Amino acid sequence: MSDAIPCDASCPVRRAANLVGHKWTTLIARDLLSGKKRYSELLRSVSGISPRLLTERLRELEAAGLVSRTVFPTIPPSTEYELTELGKGFEQVIQAMAVFGASLPDPD
Amino acid sequence: MSDAIPCDASCPVRRAANLVGHKWTTLIARDLLSGKKRYSELLRSVSGISPRLLTERLRELEAAGLVSRTVFPTIPPSTEYELTELGKGFEQVIQAMAVFGASLPDPD
Repeated sequence: MSDAIPCDASCPVRRAANLVGHKWTTLIARDLLSGKKRYSELLRSVSGISPRLLTERLRELEAAGLVSRTVFPTIPPSTEYELTELGKGFEQVIQAMAVFGASLPDPD
Repeated sequence: MSDAIPCDASCPVRRAANLVGHKWTTLIARDLLSGKKRYSELLRSVSGISPRLLTERLRELEAAGLVSRTVFPTIPPSTEYELTELGKGFEQVIQAMAVFGASLPDPD
């Protein structure tokens, strides 16, 4: 990785950073890697996220074509989120983050 | 990557996300992977970052033990930043981000 080229808008690292650079986005993607989830499941598994931020991040992921949303006509309606083929590309990043994160000292 | 365990504070992905989850941090780390850099070089190569944010992110990286700072007693003093051994762990994440980013549609 020897690179002195400025990381401008066309740089793939910057393109990924625009997504990964939201902490919650990575944690949502991590949870979706094990399969589709309902909104309420994500709210539980992504510990600490607020409902407002979860909705916002999911909309961004959907707009970027990384997550698909299915609404079931139950009463009340329930919504399921799933990574698209493109979104499954998160896996390599999340795995690298897991290895790197495990090497970092415990923040506590 | 089949994982239904909540990603709480002890989760390595969350630990990495606390760092990687700042877009600029990843882009600074990307530039330091090719070797130590002066503050002014980083300001140029991390296109778009403000001096205030560059200083802030470098301080966070230094506090986390990921970047070391050397001040040279020139007039005016110059400062060089370098990834520590721990900081070099960014490489695997940046590489995975480069691959993922390249698969994403062009935002323009």
